[in-house]
Amino acid sequence: MSDSVVTELQAALGPRLDFDEAALEACRTDRSGMYATGRPLVIVRAESIADVQATLRIAHAHGTPVVTRGAGSGLAGAAIAGDGEIVLSTERMRKIHEISVDNQLCVVEPGILNGELNAELAKHGLWWAPDPASKAISSVGGNIAMNAGGLLCTKYGVTREAVLALKVVLADGELLEVGHRTVKGVTGYDLCALMIGSEGTLGVIVEATLQLRPLVTGVVPTIGCYFPSIADAAACSAEITRRGLQPAIMELLDRHMLRAIANYTGIDFASRGEAYLLIQTDGHAALDEAESIAALARERGADVEVTTDPEAAASLVDVRRNGFLAVEAMGQAMLVEDVAVPRDRMVEMFDALDDIAERYGLFIATPSHAGDGNLHPTIVFEGSLDDVPEHVWQAASEMFTKALELGGTLSGEHGIGLLKRRWLGEELGMRQYELQQQIKRLFDPKDILNPGKVFAPEQ
Amino acid sequence: MSDSVVTELQAALGPRLDFDEAALEACRTDRSGMYATGRPLVIVRAESIADVQATLRIAHAHGTPVVTRGAGSGLAGAAIAGDGEIVLSTERMRKIHEISVDNQLCVVEPGILNGELNAELAKHGLWWAPDPASKAISSVGGNIAMNAGGLLCTKYGVTREAVLALKVVLADGELLEVGHRTVKGVTGYDLCALMIGSEGTLGVIVEATLQLRPLVTGVVPTIGCYFPSIADAAACSAEITRRGLQPAIMELLDRHMLRAIANYTGIDFASRGEAYLLIQTDGHAALDEAESIAALARERGADVEVTTDPEAAASLVDVRRNGFLAVEAMGQAMLVEDVAVPRDRMVEMFDALDDIAERYGLFIATPSHAGDGNLHPTIVFEGSLDDVPEHVWQAASEMFTKALELGGTLSGEHGIGLLKRRWLGEELGMRQYELQQQIKRLFDPKDILNPGKVFAPEQ
Ligand SMILES: Cc1cc2nc3c(=O)[nH]c(=O)nc-3n(C[C@H](O)[C@H](O)[C@H](O)COP(=O)(O)OP(=O)(O)OC[C@H]3O[C@@H](n4cnc5c(N)ncnc54)[C@H](O)[C@@H]3O)c2cc1C
Ligand SMILES: Cc1cc2nc3c(=O)[nH]c(=O)nc-3n(C[C@H](O)[C@H](O)[C@H](O)COP(=O)(O)OP(=O)(O)OC[C@H]3O[C@@H](n4cnc5c(N)ncnc54)[C@H](O)[C@@H]3O)c2cc1C
Repeated sequence: MSDSVVTELQAALGPRLDFDEAALEACRTDRSGMYATGRPLVIVRAESIADVQATLRIAHAHGTPVVTRGAGSGLAGAAIAGDGEIVLSTERMRKIHEISVDNQLCVVEPGILNGELNAELAKHGLWWAPDPASKAISSVGGNIAMNAGGLLCTKYGVTREAVLALKVVLADGELLEVGHRTVKGVTGYDLCALMIGSEGTLGVIVEATLQLRPLVTGVVPTIGCYFPSIADAAACSAEITRRGLQPAIMELLDRHMLRAIANYTGIDFASRGEAYLLIQTDGHAALDEAESIAALARERGADVEVTTDPEAAASLVDVRRNGFLAVEAMGQAMLVEDVAVPRDRMVEMFDALDDIAERYGLFIATPSHAGDGNLHPTIVFEGSLDDVPEHVWQAASEMFTKALELGGTLSGEHGIGLLKRRWLGEELGMRQYELQQQIKRLFDPKDILNPGKVFAPEQ
Repeated sequence: MSDSVVTELQAALGPRLDFDEAALEACRTDRSGMYATGRPLVIVRAESIADVQATLRIAHAHGTPVVTRGAGSGLAGAAIAGDGEIVLSTERMRKIHEISVDNQLCVVEPGILNGELNAELAKHGLWWAPDPASKAISSVGGNIAMNAGGLLCTKYGVTREAVLALKVVLADGELLEVGHRTVKGVTGYDLCALMIGSEGTLGVIVEATLQLRPLVTGVVPTIGCYFPSIADAAACSAEITRRGLQPAIMELLDRHMLRAIANYTGIDFASRGEAYLLIQTDGHAALDEAESIAALARERGADVEVTTDPEAAASLVDVRRNGFLAVEAMGQAMLVEDVAVPRDRMVEMFDALDDIAERYGLFIATPSHAGDGNLHPTIVFEGSLDDVPEHVWQAASEMFTKALELGGTLSGEHGIGLLKRRWLGEELGMRQYELQQQIKRLFDPKDILNPGKVFAPEQ
């Protein structure tokens, strides 16, 4: 059967097909480090909407699974493909069809990288706000399919707030247009929002109309603060929000993260504090806001640096940026987690992480987006993501339970994919889990779109 | 059968039931002026989630339709109830359960009025941004069920952007919790967004967790500009957007509207111009932005007034505010339309409206939210909304077709309800229309939640 589907694909899409061993092997994994079982049948490197439709029509007729792949930067194993599956790559679909300054929108193909698009938009004084740390290596389609967040989203919103309309190819190959080219529009149910964050399970996004903002210009002061404790740092960040100040970026690192970075860079932070709060302000009030924030931090005992000098700023930002590399350099496997809690419960979450690390004998370093209570506890362990030791899963599981207990969620921005599907039901509750599955069945009755992702296969 | 459902409701919810003739009569209509056929069975004045659940369990068992009613200010006939239907009123569910300054959120019952909530929030320096012109007379639940827009939404977003989580009672009486208390969260499909704008057809919203903003403080300069033509005014508003200026309010009135207001107030505008652009700026850059905008308007030939004096500002704002009253005072029936088009197509839409008015011999006055291309062409005609003459429907129908042709939508913010259901399929296309109906069936297999609204009953 898999032979005949490939034969048909070959006939319809010949030059788009890729059977290269290394390429197929690469599609077995993403940046989560997880691997699919076996190897996919073929990669279809679609170049047009018609290519995507043709692929799905054939796959649908054969009941063959299709895993859409953007840039493969996902951290949840959502884009990985294995035995008997077709990889549908959007990598060659990266045209910008339109940039409208008057309507502050653009129309693009899904495969364009976020950074690539924003470089082009900047020439027109425009900006697409979603800014995952992976913007240089992730696609717009992937950002939409995951509802990506990022550093700036407390102030500027997540991906959902920056998408006006989508063209989507459904499981059977039909083309659907959802959303509006206008800023507002209420015509029945919001299927555009339903597609955003659907992780390739409801349809393939083949074109996106994105809502843009005027590029924020002017100085962007950077503030680096070392606090005596995570509690002091969190209290300060809460006070900043409480006063109505609106930093563009507000990142918080715990002492484990600082220690890893100190080891990696050779710079000693321990003497300066136990928690690092990195803030940037922007817009018309940037300087005023920066001053108020620095004063607040000092009042709360922080060792504070404020700068508008690009080089000095870069070194403050690098502390945060080095986090991932520092942990990676520890040379072991790491599981990057992604819980979010209401802002006023962050300290409790940090405390719980300390407790979990101690009980399981694990090193857990945690950077976080303090403005929206999104923590990325990163568990370092011996082994590989492909075969995570049971006690690491146990520790992760305890994190999720704690996050839920605090009114939070098990994924702030990285999504469910394969990595977290076993916990999804716990958060959603039975009825919502069922409703979501029913929606999946409505859109994809043969279960060919990224099967086994988000929802665990029924036993 | 309707007897037995009422008997059961009586037994379960006795004191919540209202059979008052005048009250039942009032539920036959809303602010659209449309009337349901016949009169509803009873009004259940729910006081708790349990009341709503009990009502739906009984209605579900009997297959009796339930029309949820907020404050009845809707303009699409979405909340009107007739023969054999139960009205489920949220009017008594108006508690504020929580206001969290640290998390910038509140948790409220659905029946609280938008204005009532915001008055309370202001005491805490907070603000729920959705601001329909009807904020004093519309409920938060109704705002969510319609995804209400308003004057400020170009800058501050529509209702969808200001809702974190919802508790919803499903058709069978079960309670569902969707969304997150956290700012971010990606756990499967976004059923919270699906509920927003669903017009009481998918479930009853019984509790909402709302995302708040710090109250915007400081001066709010007001700018009133009379332009020689609508094209000049629209060009100026486009230029404002193009320059990255972000007015809080940007309203545009055409010459027909100005004429109606002139007749109503006795103030002569005709001598000043053919189109009126009303702008307010706010936030840190308010004064700078106001100055730039005034300069732009003058360059383009406008007669401009700028003020920060509350009284002078009120008189500039009153021009816009009097629009509705002025048209109402013409003493005939009026159909308030709600098309939206991409901003750069507004002039074409205004031209098309002139043409339609002329061909059908109708008076059409059009206020608009220029920042988001949302026009409210108001057709004045002899007769009543209950029995709209065919040529008025024809004229409306031409408007919708034109809006779609320009890349727009037939409803920017007022929704579909009964008023526009016959055109919905035209905008959505067959496949999306079907998918939406299938989703409706998934949530409400017996079709008891606001049946006949949004989707026309199948023949
Ligand atoms: C160093 C690093 C930092 C990161 N930082 C962040 C961060 O700050 N915030 C954040 O949210 N994420 C972050 N991520 C995660 C990841 O970059 C995002 O999830 C990103 O949105 C994935 O985009 P992609 O193009 O790589 O998608 P892939 O990994 O290729 O795919 C992800 C999912 O989207 C689906 N998909 C992709 N394209 C389409 C399409 N056209 N139609 C339908 N489905 C599609 C796939 O099927 C899969 O389910 C980070 C990752 C790394 C490695
Ligand atoms: C003068 C005037 C100005 C207006 N200006 C605007 C404007 O600027 N922007 C705008 O968007 N609208 C505007 N409107 C329209 C109207 O006020 C909005 O649609 C408003 O959101 C309706 O709220 P409501 O509580 O009155 O709802 P209702 O009219 O009672 O109901 C509207 C719909 O919501 C459903 N519903 C109500 N509560 C719930 C609930 N708890 N759960 C599930 N479904 C529910 C009903 O079933 C119905 O389908 C205006 C109306 C008037 C009269």
